[in-house]
Amino acid sequence: MSLAIMSPPETGRAAAPLAQMFAPTLASDEERLLDARVTLLLQRFLGSERVTSDVPFEALGDLLPGAGAPAAPALPGDYVARVIEPIVEHSINTASPRFIGHMTTALPYFVRPLSRLIAGLNQNPVKVETAKSVTPLEREALATLHRLVYDRADGFYREHAQARERTLGILTGGGTAANITALWIARNAALGPRGELGGVEREGLAAALADRGHRRAVILGSALMHYSMEKAADVLGLGISGLDRVEVDRRGRVRVERLRRALEEHRARGDLVLAVVGVAGATDTGSIDPLDELAALAGEAGVHFHVDAAWGGPLLFSRRHRGKLAGIERADTVTIDGHKQLYLPMGIGAVVMRAPDAARAIEKQAPYIIRRGSPDLGRRSLEGSRPAMALLLHAGLHLIGGDAYEALIDAGVARAGALAAAIRRRPAFELLCEPDANIVNYRYLPPALRGARARWSPADMEAVDAANLRLQEAQSRAGRSFVSRTTLAHTGRGGGAPVVSLRAVLANPLTTEAQLEEVLDEQEALARALEGGGGP
Amino acid sequence: MSLAIMSPPETGRAAAPLAQMFAPTLASDEERLLDARVTLLLQRFLGSERVTSDVPFEALGDLLPGAGAPAAPALPGDYVARVIEPIVEHSINTASPRFIGHMTTALPYFVRPLSRLIAGLNQNPVKVETAKSVTPLEREALATLHRLVYDRADGFYREHAQARERTLGILTGGGTAANITALWIARNAALGPRGELGGVEREGLAAALADRGHRRAVILGSALMHYSMEKAADVLGLGISGLDRVEVDRRGRVRVERLRRALEEHRARGDLVLAVVGVAGATDTGSIDPLDELAALAGEAGVHFHVDAAWGGPLLFSRRHRGKLAGIERADTVTIDGHKQLYLPMGIGAVVMRAPDAARAIEKQAPYIIRRGSPDLGRRSLEGSRPAMALLLHAGLHLIGGDAYEALIDAGVARAGALAAAIRRRPAFELLCEPDANIVNYRYLPPALRGARARWSPADMEAVDAANLRLQEAQSRAGRSFVSRTTLAHTGRGGGAPVVSLRAVLANPLTTEAQLEEVLDEQEALARALEGGGGP
Repeated sequence: MSLAIMSPPETGRAAAPLAQMFAPTLASDEERLLDARVTLLLQRFLGSERVTSDVPFEALGDLLPGAGAPAAPALPGDYVARVIEPIVEHSINTASPRFIGHMTTALPYFVRPLSRLIAGLNQNPVKVETAKSVTPLEREALATLHRLVYDRADGFYREHAQARERTLGILTGGGTAANITALWIARNAALGPRGELGGVEREGLAAALADRGHRRAVILGSALMHYSMEKAADVLGLGISGLDRVEVDRRGRVRVERLRRALEEHRARGDLVLAVVGVAGATDTGSIDPLDELAALAGEAGVHFHVDAAWGGPLLFSRRHRGKLAGIERADTVTIDGHKQLYLPMGIGAVVMRAPDAARAIEKQAPYIIRRGSPDLGRRSLEGSRPAMALLLHAGLHLIGGDAYEALIDAGVARAGALAAAIRRRPAFELLCEPDANIVNYRYLPPALRGARARWSPADMEAVDAANLRLQEAQSRAGRSFVSRTTLAHTGRGGGAPVVSLRAVLANPLTTEAQLEEVLDEQEALARALEGGGGP
Repeated sequence: MSLAIMSPPETGRAAAPLAQMFAPTLASDEERLLDARVTLLLQRFLGSERVTSDVPFEALGDLLPGAGAPAAPALPGDYVARVIEPIVEHSINTASPRFIGHMTTALPYFVRPLSRLIAGLNQNPVKVETAKSVTPLEREALATLHRLVYDRADGFYREHAQARERTLGILTGGGTAANITALWIARNAALGPRGELGGVEREGLAAALADRGHRRAVILGSALMHYSMEKAADVLGLGISGLDRVEVDRRGRVRVERLRRALEEHRARGDLVLAVVGVAGATDTGSIDPLDELAALAGEAGVHFHVDAAWGGPLLFSRRHRGKLAGIERADTVTIDGHKQLYLPMGIGAVVMRAPDAARAIEKQAPYIIRRGSPDLGRRSLEGSRPAMALLLHAGLHLIGGDAYEALIDAGVARAGALAAAIRRRPAFELLCEPDANIVNYRYLPPALRGARARWSPADMEAVDAANLRLQEAQSRAGRSFVSRTTLAHTGRGGGAPVVSLRAVLANPLTTEAQLEEVLDEQEALARALEGGGGP
């Protein structure tokens, strides 16, 4: 518990191990032992189908040593036993075939060794001087995502992929940074320099809007846009009220006519419309907006068209399902997450852009590193120093490959269909929404309320919501399997008011249909136990 | 080169390897072989003192397969040979004792196995449901950084470290996101809701400024602030002209009286001053602003005080050097990077905040995940899904520990002193700035211009700049060692105009004083060769 700054002078004691600790070899006893412990821990962790321990979250704080760096280093074996092992034991097995609640899933074998390589190389792609070869690798991986979306000819990629003044994509730590980056580009392009005024980048939002006679700037998109759009609207200075969330239909797709009307109304009020956002794989429902219609609308209006395909982008690998994303190739910017349906570990987002010059709107320099005209990737990015996750993105695209990505996507959508069918077969459940892709929204129905939804009183509706909330929490606490929950206002239930929905995400290639039935069995059993008055 | 979407139907072919690829075991042949290759690659990489190959950056694009995901997966062995091995061979050995040019350096052994663990566990700390035990671990690691800066009593940390409505720090992917987060908090707090108006978060920057009668909002700090501050000023809607860079003295410390005057002038013009920024370890020079004076100034003015201690924060571990940061404990927010002087790999930034409620100003929710009142860390953060880097941060604080961090810091500062002394002893070099910490700015002097600076003509000054630029590029290309360069306007050379400076960063514990002499020897030899007309 004691901080270094409270400890007596004993600098000498730490000196001996320091040289060993930083030794340029992997052959030290410490490293080999720790590596072996990690292997054992991961083996046990991945080998179990349990989602988590039965120790509740609230009790976990007590397991830890407390705030403060010890003066003397912990012995590695002790630290593993006291901290690492409990952390692993009480973490979430996001790779379990019974963890079907969030967008995190089983990963291919190569991400583990390559993550060690990335840490060992410790390249920093912000600049060539700290990541020489990683720079072209990152550019190539991003060009491949660009090609997946925009499918330009070979010559286009030969010309632009490695050209230092061109940017086909920006690698980020995740989808939120990618979405913010896309809308930052849109904002700066819409409010660029004009005559005497330097534009938003130089003069700020208030001056740039006033110069053009606008009261405010807005972004339009579906009610099901990810909450990173709120972060973007806030950070970029538009304010959350500058994010206009337009109603969706019963399958969760934005109503394009409403969006068109909203756009006209904003313009009539003098608002500057910065961007129209299409969603390709809503986080709540997996639903996909009519991107072609949105592209046409944005094109007519002369407005930046951004597609948030953080989840759904890899459907482009599937001949069967890529038609659902028709129009994405007309987007100005597209977000795709590596750590979602490219089956890579956390920390990999990307935004690709149709125009190789678009990212110039956010370019910055610094004398000690990012000089004008340099090939440094940090010139055009929200983030600065960051890990060489391009190695994992490139490896995923090559070691998994297009056919296997197609098979993964097709299997996920098929699995969602199977779960939806199982839900329809069971009177205890109600499907809330026909799945567009591989996310299924449904709910549990208490016995007295089955098959009689038309006659439910407001109290009945509340009871159903409460039952689903309790059920999801009980299942989560029990730790054998996991389904998440959300609230949905568009499914025609609840008369426009949001209803509680269970939410299953079917991306894990290890999940079998039998396990899906078992998850539903467990939910029924838990619900019965809760109805019986006792906890499970 | 072919994209999946161009390939003939052959989905079946990928089906067999898929199950193996995601098998919940580390015992597959593929994984063991790849892991062994990674070990060999890293062994060779870390074992060499060369900084990089002699293949120039411009030639590297040709080594890669080209944009596009292949339909069929690459054979792992082929992919390693064709892509991974060349990437490693032509990357930058940031751990080399002769790489003394940037803030990336040798790392302790445990980061390699633990990075594999992080990828294998694939927790997502955005929410408890995908990172149960990592949540309290991250909170504890951040509380430890808070303690390093603010040194509150045990009871403070017992009360707040794990309290879901309290935020002692936010873990980010790097210092840029940390700085943006800090200034986002400052902006939203200064322009909070008022009467009918929802404040900047809800109504946007233009409305919030107009409501208070301000033309614009500004941030004040040193001319040596990191360029992430430009990104922050742009992203947050202030515009780059809203970032007022105040002159520094000859040691690179902001002139507080000038900053005070600038603040008064901004206020007289009706600008809203959002924050005063102090720099603790400038990226260019390592210099440290007089934080106590800045804290007093910000306090009097009632303005948010942010300290960018991304580089210099860990000086707090050193009894000898922590006095240089006196006043940091009065900051509202402080940025500290894990991947700099906490000797951890890329991807670890943090902002800590004095007031446990401050981060409420940026709070967001989403129905499917981040619910109001939940313990989910994603409620208060710029980023969304992200890796569990808290494991590395916590491990660094415990496995290195306070004494060893102190020893590392003290050794780095001592090494900078040794390099400065060596530069002073050599007529071929000129020290440009007395180092505050462990960054040394100096330049090479062509023989005809030594010892005669007072008599230099403008052409002589240009010749010195050009010689240093050429020298730095030649050294970088040769790949045996690395020193970076920047331009500095404050050193009293160049009559206020920026001069080219060589820049050495002395953080690698493996670098010996003899190697520093060798780096200088190499620079003298390269300069002589360049003066001789031929390249080295």
